[in-house]
Amino acid sequence: MSRVCLVGVGLIGGSLGLALREAGWEVLGVDPDRASLARALEIGAIDGAVELEEGASRAELAVIATPVEEVIPTCRKLLPALARDALVMDVASTKCAIVQKAEEILPGRFIGGHPMAGSEKGGIDAADPYLFENAPFVLCPGTGVDSKAIARAEELVRKVGAIPIQMTAQEHDEVVGMISHLPHLCAVALLDTLTGLEQKDQAMQLAAGGFRDLTRIASGSPELWRGILGSNRWVVAQLLGELQKSLQKSKEFLEQGDLTGLTAQLAKAKETREKLPARRKGLLGASYELLLSLPDRPGSLAKVTAVLAEAEINIQDLEILRVREGEGGTVKLSFASDQAQQKAAERLRASGFKPVLRHE
Amino acid sequence: MSRVCLVGVGLIGGSLGLALREAGWEVLGVDPDRASLARALEIGAIDGAVELEEGASRAELAVIATPVEEVIPTCRKLLPALARDALVMDVASTKCAIVQKAEEILPGRFIGGHPMAGSEKGGIDAADPYLFENAPFVLCPGTGVDSKAIARAEELVRKVGAIPIQMTAQEHDEVVGMISHLPHLCAVALLDTLTGLEQKDQAMQLAAGGFRDLTRIASGSPELWRGILGSNRWVVAQLLGELQKSLQKSKEFLEQGDLTGLTAQLAKAKETREKLPARRKGLLGASYELLLSLPDRPGSLAKVTAVLAEAEINIQDLEILRVREGEGGTVKLSFASDQAQQKAAERLRASGFKPVLRHE
Repeated sequence: MSRVCLVGVGLIGGSLGLALREAGWEVLGVDPDRASLARALEIGAIDGAVELEEGASRAELAVIATPVEEVIPTCRKLLPALARDALVMDVASTKCAIVQKAEEILPGRFIGGHPMAGSEKGGIDAADPYLFENAPFVLCPGTGVDSKAIARAEELVRKVGAIPIQMTAQEHDEVVGMISHLPHLCAVALLDTLTGLEQKDQAMQLAAGGFRDLTRIASGSPELWRGILGSNRWVVAQLLGELQKSLQKSKEFLEQGDLTGLTAQLAKAKETREKLPARRKGLLGASYELLLSLPDRPGSLAKVTAVLAEAEINIQDLEILRVREGEGGTVKLSFASDQAQQKAAERLRASGFKPVLRHE
Repeated sequence: MSRVCLVGVGLIGGSLGLALREAGWEVLGVDPDRASLARALEIGAIDGAVELEEGASRAELAVIATPVEEVIPTCRKLLPALARDALVMDVASTKCAIVQKAEEILPGRFIGGHPMAGSEKGGIDAADPYLFENAPFVLCPGTGVDSKAIARAEELVRKVGAIPIQMTAQEHDEVVGMISHLPHLCAVALLDTLTGLEQKDQAMQLAAGGFRDLTRIASGSPELWRGILGSNRWVVAQLLGELQKSLQKSKEFLEQGDLTGLTAQLAKAKETREKLPARRKGLLGASYELLLSLPDRPGSLAKVTAVLAEAEINIQDLEILRVREGEGGTVKLSFASDQAQQKAAERLRASGFKPVLRHE
């Protein structure tokens, strides 16, 4: 059993605590917000609430789960109290600036971490022991961190159900700049454009659904994102420049009526999109899907899940694609293997459903 | 009972046919693609396959569900054969150019239509009688179309389960340019930027999940989108200009380290996002949600749906938010009323689950 000092018990810290305690680790919680700390104790995310010095001296591993601006000040506070051989990790969304400074403060003892899981909701009340299950968890060891220390960080990652992926802080920041920070600013710009529209009210009314889903990321806390974007600002600014070039190309194709050029651009994007690993492909295996139209009567979804449960077929994912007033709609079921998909299709057909097979 | 001539039996046409026939209407199908037409007959999307002239002469209403480029040529072909008093509608994604030309060809008899529902998949095999359920269906009547004709178009819209919304073609094109065409080009630009990245391979690997969902729209057919974007090119080009201004603002905030300016921009976007009606709010009523962590064992989802079916509680939507290897994860259930939400929470608690209430 290992003992971890968790500094910060918000969504990420609280979820780590819940998952680590479920895995049998001891978790000491530190947070200046007494209410969050009390709640963390109440929901079982920590074994006990302690002061930073006590936590630092008793733990083998300290995990900093504070807002990004607090990571370096926390490293400084941890240093004098830290037990010999104890390792320090953080879980902030950008890594270059943090790893560079933290390894100066804690030479050979700091590993930058970034669990790529989250929720629009923040705070200890949104904590979830399954938050990290199957999520990539990037580790960026500082220079001079030995393989034994890396193995310990990887152990923590695996204990919470995540998949450790090692890369440099520079690599990490470009990657998350691309797949997280840039889309965030795209969503912000879309909403900005909407606000300035003449037909704003009608557009808002019809924006429910797809547009709303697309801009969900922009509902994150501005204060939190200020920290994230600010700490990766040069990378993101450069990515914005590249994005603008592509948008400018589209704009010129449209203005010049060059629909052949536009089509080529669209086709290239489609090709890239199709190369993206499916949700559980690559890291987590492929996904085999069934589409099913359900009649609009109570219990029809229950019937589907019961048929599959009875046959002991695991549903990897279930999504209601189009919803009608009642319970039904078109449902997408995903399975981990084509055998499971085939077996599910057979059983559902035998029960009167008409599944359509799909593989992505 | 009414008789409709359906020109084009792809995803939209086929789905309209299925829904209208279910509502008791007679549907005559026209399509140059004989295989699609045969398939439409096979799945029950049409009552019979006819030539355009025959369909036009026998129907009270002709619905043009061809690619956007074919709408006007089809209007010309319909004109000589069309029954007296018969009305013509289309279902293409842009309206200005079409309505303007079509009302010259068919004065007083043309109503532009746009059902705001679709699927990434096209073709008759993706047709779904429930595709339009609860979807907004915009109607843009040509000048000189009388209220009786509009009422007939609205009747068709309601028969397929959609909600008629009347606006001018100009209003429509700005609105869909904003909520559909601009996001499409954003997704294209994001994928374009990803392709040019130094860390492209690592980014692709980690892009599974959120980024993949965000760019799903870009997997639509380039040929189809060429037509859509081309027919709305001036509106979209102008919207792109506005979008670029907003992105440029973000870029300058980042380059200048003006995090206060950036935060204000983020906060404004969040505010707009929060004013967007929720999926079923506004048009379709609010959504009351429960979050549920499910243990990782076969049948636990079946247990949830069975508990709710037994209590005759309708599930409006079900989404697995985070998936683990087996069946479980965190599940989001939506209900149409707070009564249903409360009752569901009670029943689930009584069965050993720990639902968390959420209202958006």
